[in-house]
Formats: sequence, structure tokens, C-alpha cells
Amino acid sequence: MSIADALAERIAGVRFDALPTEAVYWSRTAIMDTVGCTLAGANESCARIAARVSASSGPCLVFGTNERVAPLDAALINGTAAHALDFDDCSNTLGGHPSAPILPALFALSETRALDGRAFITAYVAGWETETRIARGVNFHHYEKGWHPTATLGVFGATAACCHLLELSPDVTARALGLAASFASGVKANFGTMTKPLHVGHSARDGLLAALLTAEGFTANPGALEHPQGFLHVFNGAGNFDADAILRDWGQPWDIVQPGVAIKQYPCCGSTHPAVDAMLALVREHRLTPAMVERVDARTHPRRLAHTNRPAPNSELDAKFSVQYCLARALADGRVSLEHFEGDSFRDSAIRELLPRIYAAPHPDMSMASTEHFGGEVRVTLTDGRVLTAKVARPLGRGPENPLPAELLEAKFLNCAARALPMEQAKKLLAVLRQLDALSDMCHVTDAMTPSVALATD
Amino acid sequence: MSIADALAERIAGVRFDALPTEAVYWSRTAIMDTVGCTLAGANESCARIAARVSASSGPCLVFGTNERVAPLDAALINGTAAHALDFDDCSNTLGGHPSAPILPALFALSETRALDGRAFITAYVAGWETETRIARGVNFHHYEKGWHPTATLGVFGATAACCHLLELSPDVTARALGLAASFASGVKANFGTMTKPLHVGHSARDGLLAALLTAEGFTANPGALEHPQGFLHVFNGAGNFDADAILRDWGQPWDIVQPGVAIKQYPCCGSTHPAVDAMLALVREHRLTPAMVERVDARTHPRRLAHTNRPAPNSELDAKFSVQYCLARALADGRVSLEHFEGDSFRDSAIRELLPRIYAAPHPDMSMASTEHFGGEVRVTLTDGRVLTAKVARPLGRGPENPLPAELLEAKFLNCAARALPMEQAKKLLAVLRQLDALSDMCHVTDAMTPSVALATD
Repeated sequence: MSIADALAERIAGVRFDALPTEAVYWSRTAIMDTVGCTLAGANESCARIAARVSASSGPCLVFGTNERVAPLDAALINGTAAHALDFDDCSNTLGGHPSAPILPALFALSETRALDGRAFITAYVAGWETETRIARGVNFHHYEKGWHPTATLGVFGATAACCHLLELSPDVTARALGLAASFASGVKANFGTMTKPLHVGHSARDGLLAALLTAEGFTANPGALEHPQGFLHVFNGAGNFDADAILRDWGQPWDIVQPGVAIKQYPCCGSTHPAVDAMLALVREHRLTPAMVERVDARTHPRRLAHTNRPAPNSELDAKFSVQYCLARALADGRVSLEHFEGDSFRDSAIRELLPRIYAAPHPDMSMASTEHFGGEVRVTLTDGRVLTAKVARPLGRGPENPLPAELLEAKFLNCAARALPMEQAKKLLAVLRQLDALSDMCHVTDAMTPSVALATD
Repeated sequence: MSIADALAERIAGVRFDALPTEAVYWSRTAIMDTVGCTLAGANESCARIAARVSASSGPCLVFGTNERVAPLDAALINGTAAHALDFDDCSNTLGGHPSAPILPALFALSETRALDGRAFITAYVAGWETETRIARGVNFHHYEKGWHPTATLGVFGATAACCHLLELSPDVTARALGLAASFASGVKANFGTMTKPLHVGHSARDGLLAALLTAEGFTANPGALEHPQGFLHVFNGAGNFDADAILRDWGQPWDIVQPGVAIKQYPCCGSTHPAVDAMLALVREHRLTPAMVERVDARTHPRRLAHTNRPAPNSELDAKFSVQYCLARALADGRVSLEHFEGDSFRDSAIRELLPRIYAAPHPDMSMASTEHFGGEVRVTLTDGRVLTAKVARPLGRGPENPLPAELLEAKFLNCAARALPMEQAKKLLAVLRQLDALSDMCHVTDAMTPSVALATD
């Protein structure tokens, strides 16, 4: 039995009723977060250009607009939007973003047939489990070599999820996974350009395409993962993968539960997050304002500081990678959100005035060799002479032991969704997503984000 | 200057007036041959399923039908059809099929704007040169590792050709080539399934998409070929490519001229072709019929015989790889053509009766170590006791030194085109393609193959 055959049996066997409560909780949470990120990214140039070039007519919503296109095009456009801001959820197993390649394909399918929220969540868990199980067999050689796992492994996740939703037999699903081996693509040389989020849209589209083609009888080799000229050998090479690891411990526990979903709270480089968490804790506890502060000292892991030590950022992108800028925002605004990285925000005079008081240095207790590099510490010297300190071991949201409280998750969602929808509508959409597993028809989600539909039912 | 930048300057510099006559001749010939193969493949399941799944409406003809779809979908469907029968042209430089990924993308573009035949041919030469120059840098490690060069290198050819046709600047073209590095995909594990021709359609679509996106301002890294996490390092690996070879000798001579286009005369495995050529020479010279023949002995290179020694084929695909079956057809029918590999033809009683008289063995003068493995010899023992022999060093059509005569090229075209069009219409299409470089509007080609249009002007 080939790897794809064995995976296909496991995929076909995923049942909503057998999922633990935590898997459903984290699915609902990650789906809500990804929908928010997609709406926030919908007006980014990468998504708008992809939409212009892939123009078609069809039943599937382009998130954040009134446009409806063919399913494959919707997967491409919404997948690109989902990752446009690099604000979508992460997985340490995958070495990438697990939801963005899967969900745009599932949403596109959900607008072509009647589907309830439970079927949607079940397919999503099957897709997540597939891509992260394959990741266990190929990472981190795969990542370090230069592949972009969100795309090269995400395409298998999207394929598996679509096959599950279409209720394809294990035989057909195995062929679809074999076909996906020929669609896997995306090199990290294109990081830092619009092509990075496009990788994600492209893999969402290709995963859906693999499922639709094989559902119609298209043939592919179910042995294409382990074949000497197949995915494992060609992408990783002999000695650089562990095929057995792919099939071990499927669903025990579900990867979405443990190690779980990492959700980004701030739309800036993850390496700034621990210091921002510490800063916001002090701001909230002591009701700090910029006028009260003489000096801020941030201490983070040297590996994380290397690319975030930017005392005076000169562009939106520069600001996203400046721990000083992010701390200035946390102090001045009591939060770090999308508008802080848009347009000329990085030039705000109040922030410019604060920046010279913010210092960053490597944390003396965190060695370069340590693998525990998620922590940060902030020391604030007040004008009245007091010194306040806060330290976090890991930023909030980076896994189930350290979850984002519901109000912060929802605040992030609303901040994101309001990029594309009126706030009232964003709130209604949030209410729908909160009840995802109780939805009788998944179209309620896309209807809730279509301006005209929402107004008509108001 | 990056490799893509340097290629982009060369691509933008290709001008029809500077092309040698031979380049135009071979372009016209290969375009005619590819159009024929695409029509012959249009009704194969792989192409029909791809068309069903990618349904859209738009200006671009699905070859062999009356359907018109969006440009990207046309590139996917027609690209799949072009390679469906593995009957399309070959290149030893590419280690694959050079025209099939390029032309479907160019035909799709040609139906969205006014274009003459010269612009079309010039873009095609630029695309062919790009993919075969990159091939010089990565082959044959690339091929032997398991990549399918027709797709993984063809995507660069399609991208370059589309950028040329759209008259994009070298800067934009370089970005498009960088983007194409992230689209390159296709592993040989899927050979022998419908996914093999799909690779070709997928790369035609992706090449067109890369050009259309970057034309609208989409960003990508023009350094993505030589980047440590880019195409050369990730696909081939350090020590397994020669970056300088990519930029050396562009157009000196044009690869389409030398080593040139290899055109398949028979719709069966290329390893059977030398023996078939020798057999047909005897059949024609001596007006042989099966009744005159007691025994046929074929002698071919042992490397070629290994997969073609099939004395009693049991399926259409088996027949394509049986040198005995192909020789029986050559003797009984005086030709080897598409219908011999369709449906139940392999069961024809006249052929079944002939097969036991046909013997294949390795040629005693052709050692396994020899690289000259294109030859074949046939020895026919007649019932009257005479023995006839014929030997060919290379099959007809495998390069410019050994070209297919015009009447055989055109016979192949008509045999192919008649799979999808009435013979009268196939002949009219041939007349249009013969004059390709004189066409004022490329839409005359697709109009000539649209049944209703052709009937209306009849």
C-alpha cells in the first residue's frame, strides 16, 4: 500500500463525531482568524492583481468584494489574500501557515453545493492533519533547502480537505494526492515579494483542481510520494526524509490540537511579539502614557533581534520588522494593529518622538545556542524614577498552552474584517463564525460578508 | 545583473527580421505539427476532463471543439491536449517536448489582441530559446533526478514567449521569469498517467499567468534562478548545474535550428521508429504484402529494445511500445498511424496472424555503451526465399540533417487534424498554417479550426 493510499484511508475515516472538543474549538478559532486575515488582505495589491487577471464569472465570492468567480479562481484569489499580510495562523510542524492553503479551497467548494458547518470543519481537520503529517516526514530539511512548505505541503492539505468534502473514495483520494505531488511548487527566493502570498493561492487552487480532476476520473500515480522520481526523493532527496513519520500517530493527537495553532496577535514580525506582549501588560497594569516614560529597554533573543533591531524605520515594511516601532505603538496606542503599518503611519510625529527613548539589545540570559527563543523582557524607566519590568516566556497565541483570550481574538478579527466590511457587518459575520459547527449551510458565512446580501436581510 | 535580467534582455531583443530563414521554417513546421497533435489529442480523456473542470466563458478556442473559454483555461486545456498522445515534437537539449508548453499559451493570447504571424513566430522562438538555454544549465541531472523538463523548464519558455508577445520591458520580463521559478512543478513519478500531459497544460497556463500578473505590476524576485533558495539550488542542488551555460551563445545558433526540432512520424514509442522506417522503406521499394513474407527480423539498440520487445501486445498502450506490432502495421498497412492505437485495433486478426512471424533482438553491432542508439535494421525473409534488408542510422524527423519530407509531415498533420475536424477543413487549416509568417491576423488559425466559422465561410 502506497503512502497516498494509507493517507487516503485515514482521510476518508475522519468523522465529526469522533473529533475531540478541542479540535472543533481550534478549528472554529483558526477558521475565524483566517477569514479575518483574508478580509484584511483582500485589498492588498497582490490579491487585487490576481483578481483582475483571473477574472471569471461563477458562484464563489471574492472575499471583501461583491465579485463572484469560478471556484478555482476564488481559491487562487482568496488564498493570495489570506496570506497577503502574513498575519494568518502558523504551525511549527508545518514550518508555515496551515490554514491559508486549505480554507479558500473549501470555501469555494462550499458555494457549489449544500454543506453544513460540521462537514466543513471535518474536511478542514483532515486537510490540516495531512499537510502536517507529511511535514513530519520532510521537515525541516524541506524548509531549510528553500521550499515554501505553506505551498509545497499546503497543496496536499488542500487536496485532502477537498477530497474529504467531496466524499471521494480512498482510491480516488490517493490519486488526487499523487497528482498533488506534481503540483507542489514555490521557492523561498520569492519571499519579500507578492509572489509569496501567491504561492498560497496557487496551492489552494491546485489542491482543489487535483480533487475535481480525479473526481471526474483523471488518473495519477498513488505511489507518487515514495516513487524514486516522486515527491520525497525529488523534493528532499534520499537520506533527507522519513517516510514512516508521515503515517505514524495520525490523529493521536490531532496536530491542530497539539502542538496546535499559533495565532499572531499583531500584524508585524513574530520576533517582536514577546516584547510587545510584555509592554502591553505594563501599559495596561500601570495605565502608562508616553509622557510618563523616560526610557524603554527591550531584551529579546539575539536570533530574533538580528532582523528586528530597527531604531528608525523608513517604510511600512521596515516598521513591521522594527521592535522599537512596535513598542512605541504599544505604549502610545495601547495596541498594535493593522493601521499602524499602513500608508504613512510609520511617520507619525508622536511615534517619531518616542522612538529615541526605546532601546533594544540581546537578552543576557538567552544564548544564541538556545532553542527557547520565544521570550522577551521589557524594562520601563518612568520620569518619576520608578522602574517597571515585565517578562514573557512566549507570546500569547503561540499554541494551546498560551492561548489568546477570546476578546483579543475577536478584537483582531474585527480590526481585520473592518478593512473590507462596515463594522456592523463585521460583527454579524463574527457572530456567524462563532457558531460555525452549528451552521446548517456554509453559505451563511459568505452571505454574511457580501455587502448587498447583508443589507438586504438587515 | 541576475540570470533572469540577462535572459530578459535577450528575450526582448529577439526580432523577426533578424531571424534566419531556417528558424522561421522550423517554427512554421513545429507549429503546424503541434496544432495537429493538439487536435488529435483534443478528444482524449485527459483533455476532456480538464475542459469540464475548468469550464469558463471567454474568447479562446478549445481546440477540436466549438467551446471558447478564458485565456488561462485555454492554455491549460489545449496544453494538455497537445501532449495527450505524446506525439508532439521533441528536443534533445530540453530532454522533453519544447512546443507544447509554449504554443497553447501563445494561441490563447493571440485571441485577446490583434497579432500577426510574424509576432507569433518571434515570440515562439524566444520561448523555445529560453527553455532550452536554461536546459543547458540544468540537464541532464535535472531530468534524471525526476523532474519533467517539459513542464519545469517549459514554464519558463511559456513565460518568455508570452512576455515577448505582450512586449513587456526587460525589467518586467525578468520578474515574470523569477515568478515562473515558483510555478515550476511536475515529477516523473506521474509518467504513464493523465497527469503527464496535464503537467504540460499546467505549465502553459502558469507561464501565461506569470506574464499577465507581472504585466499588471505583480512583484517577484528577478534573482530567483540563482538565489540560494531559488530554482537552480532547490531543483538541482549545488554542483549539479552550470549557471554560465544558460547565458552562453544565445541564438548562436538558435536551438530550434541546431540541434533543432525532432518530429515524431509515428504515434508510438520513439524507440520503435528506426525499425519502422527501415520496414516501410522495404515495403515501398518491393511492394511487400504480408502474404509475401515468411519472417521479419528486427535489430535495434539493446537500450531501445528493452522496453519495446513486446511480441503480443495486450492493450492500446502496450501496442505503442511493441516493435513487433509496429512492424506488423507497417507491413500490413504501409504506414503507422493514430487509428492503429485506438480502441480494439491491437486485436485485428490480420495483425495477430502476422505477429508470430516478427522477431526482435538486440543489434550485434550496437553495444549498450554506445551513445549512438538511434539506429535500426530490418531483415525480411520472403516466401520465395529472397532476403531483403534495410538499415537506418536515425529515424526520419529526428533533427534537421534528417528531416521528414513535406508530404510525410503533412500526412501526419492531416491524420491528426482529422481526429477532430472534417478532412476538408483539416486541409484548409493546413493551407493557413503553411503561410503562417504571412498571416496578418493569427485568429485566422483558430477560426480555420472552428467548425461553425469554417462552414459559414465555405
